[in-house]
Amino acid sequence: MVAEIICVGTELLLGQIVNTNAQYLSQKLASLGIDLYFQTTVGDNLNRLKSAIDIASKRADILIFTGGLGPTSDDITKEAVCEYLGKKLILDQEILNKIENYFKHRGARMPDINKKQAYVPEGAIVLENKYGTAPGFIIEENNKIAILLPGPPFEMQPMFEEYVVPYLEKFSKEKIYSRVLKFIGIGESSIEERLRDFIQNQSDPSLALYAKPFEVELRISTKKSSEPLAKDLLDQIESKVRSLLGEYIYGVDNQTLEEVIVEMLLQKGLKVSVAESCTGGLICNKITNVPGASNVFDRGFITYSNEAKVKELGVSEEALKNFGAVSHEVAKQMAQGALNNSLADIAISTTGIAGPTGATKTKPVGLVYIGIATKNYVDSFEFKFSGDRLRIKEIASKAALDVLRRTLISY
Amino acid sequence: MVAEIICVGTELLLGQIVNTNAQYLSQKLASLGIDLYFQTTVGDNLNRLKSAIDIASKRADILIFTGGLGPTSDDITKEAVCEYLGKKLILDQEILNKIENYFKHRGARMPDINKKQAYVPEGAIVLENKYGTAPGFIIEENNKIAILLPGPPFEMQPMFEEYVVPYLEKFSKEKIYSRVLKFIGIGESSIEERLRDFIQNQSDPSLALYAKPFEVELRISTKKSSEPLAKDLLDQIESKVRSLLGEYIYGVDNQTLEEVIVEMLLQKGLKVSVAESCTGGLICNKITNVPGASNVFDRGFITYSNEAKVKELGVSEEALKNFGAVSHEVAKQMAQGALNNSLADIAISTTGIAGPTGATKTKPVGLVYIGIATKNYVDSFEFKFSGDRLRIKEIASKAALDVLRRTLISY
Repeated sequence: MVAEIICVGTELLLGQIVNTNAQYLSQKLASLGIDLYFQTTVGDNLNRLKSAIDIASKRADILIFTGGLGPTSDDITKEAVCEYLGKKLILDQEILNKIENYFKHRGARMPDINKKQAYVPEGAIVLENKYGTAPGFIIEENNKIAILLPGPPFEMQPMFEEYVVPYLEKFSKEKIYSRVLKFIGIGESSIEERLRDFIQNQSDPSLALYAKPFEVELRISTKKSSEPLAKDLLDQIESKVRSLLGEYIYGVDNQTLEEVIVEMLLQKGLKVSVAESCTGGLICNKITNVPGASNVFDRGFITYSNEAKVKELGVSEEALKNFGAVSHEVAKQMAQGALNNSLADIAISTTGIAGPTGATKTKPVGLVYIGIATKNYVDSFEFKFSGDRLRIKEIASKAALDVLRRTLISY
Repeated sequence: MVAEIICVGTELLLGQIVNTNAQYLSQKLASLGIDLYFQTTVGDNLNRLKSAIDIASKRADILIFTGGLGPTSDDITKEAVCEYLGKKLILDQEILNKIENYFKHRGARMPDINKKQAYVPEGAIVLENKYGTAPGFIIEENNKIAILLPGPPFEMQPMFEEYVVPYLEKFSKEKIYSRVLKFIGIGESSIEERLRDFIQNQSDPSLALYAKPFEVELRISTKKSSEPLAKDLLDQIESKVRSLLGEYIYGVDNQTLEEVIVEMLLQKGLKVSVAESCTGGLICNKITNVPGASNVFDRGFITYSNEAKVKELGVSEEALKNFGAVSHEVAKQMAQGALNNSLADIAISTTGIAGPTGATKTKPVGLVYIGIATKNYVDSFEFKFSGDRLRIKEIASKAALDVLRRTLISY
């Protein structure tokens, strides 16, 4: 079975809202093992919606609509589908009572325009809406299925879960199971080169790479009739990929780099402190986004000025004068200072030029030094990033967290 | 002129990412006065993409593509458009050099597969990609225009701004001109009540309110043939709204709260320092996101543990014992300490319970104290926020910045 999603709403075409319904429905269809080849978005216009229905019914078996079930005159999804299928709309007294009660429950009288929502396409299965006044519908006709759902996600999603998932499950014997491996410190094309033969000879599970800022994700997906069958296969592929590129894999599925690090620190009973110049608090912010961070994060020093680097971290005036604030030496002294002046076992630091100003002949925008200090050693690393100020801060903070992660592995 | 957006990527059909490109492009087209009737999303499949191109070229003059310009074999947008138009792809040595330099700059060799990105559709206008290796293209053919842009938003958006906006401007006589007034410290319904008569009697410009976390935006929009015509009208409405609610308006259009604050500090020749507990670095991060922040931001103290509050800020053990870390007293001592231990003229602090753990009987998740200290006085404010950890951090940081803003107004 092939499905197509048709989202109806002029507000989508004006960019007033982001279309999270398309993502939600796509995820659900994928996990149900139902193929989806197209998503279409169309405004509140009868003829254009009917043309979208015509195109979609030629390339899909199941048409899923969101939006356009409201009470106003520009809500026309039900009308367009019925006109296209030559079906009548019939007033349903039970639904009318429910809508009237919905308003009564809120101490209000039902506005006349809401009566429109009590009309049902003839022969349709009615889907109750517990969070609004627009019921949904499933219409079966000539081996095609039309599923009409309201637009607001908090109304649509519970209806999809409760009625549409069980309805669609019977059409597919197999579901898609996925696992995402998250890489850092290696580029998309390098991963592809290292895995090329493996990816090309691999049809089930399928493998796909996605680049993100300073990260790459590898998604492993397989269509199977049960979870244990899928899990075995995904485990096999994961361990094969890990044997080739394990050192670059920091996490799985929805794990973030900072979650992995907080977990590693917890397990090892260690605390970290952070000294930030160019990243300006972003590393501390990321770490403290993780619930329970207070068990492993002691403190952070956001030393933007040279005076702050000297006073808070004990960076030497000499190092600042001889090498400049953006240097291996200052990165190391910052990390050492953060370690000395805290209760932490390990400390990281950043100093660099986030731009757009501040570059010199020898120090371009994007030059960043990352320092690390433990009780046993101090080290620093040079990076050259590109992008605007926010992107350089983001990438530099990820690079620093990765330096910390790699150090923790062998700590 | 009618445009259509075609987003290419199997990851969209699997629901792995939300399609923010469709929203971004829709907004831009609306403001350019270019009609948009359909958005189509299609996977990395040559035949299906070609069929989407065929359908779109029958109902639109301008086809805007995002995605599918990467180096891997499943990136096929350029190939599909060229096959559909019967155009050749020609190797462009200059682009190849740029891609090679992109890798060289990062100390890496260009993987062979990236050579694919140096092929240009014959006769196309090339759009430089400053943040990635995939150039974009504008192809004009038979009164139709195809615009090909890469999928990652941080690459696509700067290219659209720099090259596509000036290119498309010539096709539309009237544009939509908007101004956004940004409110803080007042709720959406209070603004609506205060402006109700004014909004209802107003058809051009139109006014619309949008609620955001701890902020509200009022968008004033008008469709006009020239900017001066629009500007006069927008100025009139803005000054009327300011006369009613001026104290709550912190900025206009894309200004962020932190930009406004950095600008105020610069104008007054003042420096700020920040002491953060529950916001964990987010305030420092926001301030340092503003270019030139180094002129006004001296340093930040991320004092997560009680020991750090005592050692870095001079918070008294007594206050921690008697009132607890989350209290008016500790917020005030933190702000005072950040002022004393830095070169700043003004300091703000946060201490609170971001959750999900850490609540007590008397101190629920969401309780936050914000302190402020200047050379003349110290004060603190209590807030009760709701939401998850990230939302509480976000709202608390905005509340702290607003306390700073209000203090700076009369400083």
